[in-house]
Amino acid sequence: MSRIDETVKKIKPIDRSFHEKAQARLDILTKPQGSLGRLEEFAMRLVGIYRSEMPELPRKIIFTFAGDHGVASAGVSAFPKEVTPQMVFNFIRGGAGINVLARQAGADVAVVDAGVDFDFEGAEGMHHMKVVRGTKNMIEGPAMSREEAEKCLELGITLASEYKAKGYTLMGTGDMGIGNTTPSSAICSCITGLPVREVTGRGTGIDDKTLEGKIGVIEKALEVNKPDPSDGLDVLSKVGGAEIGAIAGLCLGAAAEGLPVVVDGFISTAGALIAYAIEPRVAEYMFSAHRSVEIGQGAMLRKMGLEPIVDLGMRLGEGTGSALAMMLMESGLRIYREMATFADAGVSGQEG
Amino acid sequence: MSRIDETVKKIKPIDRSFHEKAQARLDILTKPQGSLGRLEEFAMRLVGIYRSEMPELPRKIIFTFAGDHGVASAGVSAFPKEVTPQMVFNFIRGGAGINVLARQAGADVAVVDAGVDFDFEGAEGMHHMKVVRGTKNMIEGPAMSREEAEKCLELGITLASEYKAKGYTLMGTGDMGIGNTTPSSAICSCITGLPVREVTGRGTGIDDKTLEGKIGVIEKALEVNKPDPSDGLDVLSKVGGAEIGAIAGLCLGAAAEGLPVVVDGFISTAGALIAYAIEPRVAEYMFSAHRSVEIGQGAMLRKMGLEPIVDLGMRLGEGTGSALAMMLMESGLRIYREMATFADAGVSGQEG
Repeated sequence: MSRIDETVKKIKPIDRSFHEKAQARLDILTKPQGSLGRLEEFAMRLVGIYRSEMPELPRKIIFTFAGDHGVASAGVSAFPKEVTPQMVFNFIRGGAGINVLARQAGADVAVVDAGVDFDFEGAEGMHHMKVVRGTKNMIEGPAMSREEAEKCLELGITLASEYKAKGYTLMGTGDMGIGNTTPSSAICSCITGLPVREVTGRGTGIDDKTLEGKIGVIEKALEVNKPDPSDGLDVLSKVGGAEIGAIAGLCLGAAAEGLPVVVDGFISTAGALIAYAIEPRVAEYMFSAHRSVEIGQGAMLRKMGLEPIVDLGMRLGEGTGSALAMMLMESGLRIYREMATFADAGVSGQEG
Repeated sequence: MSRIDETVKKIKPIDRSFHEKAQARLDILTKPQGSLGRLEEFAMRLVGIYRSEMPELPRKIIFTFAGDHGVASAGVSAFPKEVTPQMVFNFIRGGAGINVLARQAGADVAVVDAGVDFDFEGAEGMHHMKVVRGTKNMIEGPAMSREEAEKCLELGITLASEYKAKGYTLMGTGDMGIGNTTPSSAICSCITGLPVREVTGRGTGIDDKTLEGKIGVIEKALEVNKPDPSDGLDVLSKVGGAEIGAIAGLCLGAAAEGLPVVVDGFISTAGALIAYAIEPRVAEYMFSAHRSVEIGQGAMLRKMGLEPIVDLGMRLGEGTGSALAMMLMESGLRIYREMATFADAGVSGQEG
């Protein structure tokens, strides 16, 4: 059995009896029932995923996966391709948005080269797990071979397992890769069946003309490659990217390890959708961090039954939404753990 | 000149040149311009309010104002009135939702008796600033006298000034008072001009029949008292409450001290609207913490030009939304303060 099949087999359905136990406790805390809304939902889901009636506060890790894209040469981004490795060095030095927000959230950041077109030569403070040196241009044929796509998934699976062993209990995804909204829109269109135009946005901030070109590029890539929407690995290899595959692998890996995984924005949601195409049960372990400005995200979330935690008009990626969402998921768990019950506090309950 | 007039006179318009300075810095940080969405807006607004190009991270305080309501005897709530003082003791002991979330946000909580119908007899860990021992039943006449309403505002103003002197730089509002969605809906209907039915919700969780009764009670209170929507103090005294007045006073006081104030949910928004009716400029210092489940909040926020920071289906009050919003406002300021610039990080900028 392949590593991926083994991982998928390990993903257990959620034991709903833990949801009932969590709900019972939430309802005796000193507040009107349900009045903390989604904070209570987060607590309940976490109790279910951890299979523990009183989970510890999570130890948090955000993976920022970097990769380059052959299709970037087609002029689909507002930034040059050199920015991918430059930003990787920024992550290592702690100067990027994800570093700032992860520090606030009490999360560590793992920087992973999944497929950057640059030789990092043993640079410290990052994981060297390069599968490809940038993908091929998907207008001309598959972005990666099926074997390469498998390796991307496997690297995410490996990291989930390694970081669980290190004691982390809440994993978040993030991405860096100039041009990577283009494969993400391609994945989205392919798997949701929506027209490319309805799921393609402005990425880092392109103008109308570049957006038209980007739509044409994605349509052509789908036409040339004909990815099979029922085969996540086929979609990933033909119109995906290395960091997107790593995100998919991390989602599968976290779920297999019985840990919750926070899915950042548009690119991460495309990665999550690849994982979902491989095994829909993985969605029970996922939390959608934030509503991205990118228009294709909504359709993917609906398919997976996820509702974003925050909506702050963000579109940076890197895992920045994951960091914010982790704080609010922790809020839910703190409420669950720390609030007094009606009996403890001597407070009268609801009448009638 | 009255204390309230003096306070209003101290509220300065925002100096927009600080917004420009903030925007200039945000645009050289290593991210596509505007890609952190509302986090950037929070940073810009805070720079403007603090009139500092590089503000320190805030020291945060949340005021949970408690008061009782004569109208609670009309059967408008799912909880008995005794819960107000019981919850005050819960706040003091640290077992309530607000305590849990404030701890996470790094905020202190100040518990204030503004008008509870209970003798706290020198209980420690709270502010004893009782203006009334519960309001009168507004179906029969004004909830408070104009002088009492003034005293409620003044207590909020006093606390804003005291806590600024203690070094706090970010203030949040919160409320506790069985029955207080009823006066809040009355204030909302009176000042926005919307029908009572359109701005009245289920509070802590009442059934259909009780909701119909609540709507009737509010309609009658407005008919009996005929509050003048252009006179915030008149509205507060006739159909408001002590904790709502204290929230209004805190908003005015914080703005007068040049400090941002986070307005929690429905009841706090009604208090903020009283402050806004007295001096609209106060809204420039306000942040709306969260979208409440209570249906009247939206109309009040639109009137003041505010957009909630989170939307998590919450309706607890106490300041719980303020605590979450403070974390995200701090995220914005951290981004502004800590991210590397393109030049620092050696990252190529946007093309074109």
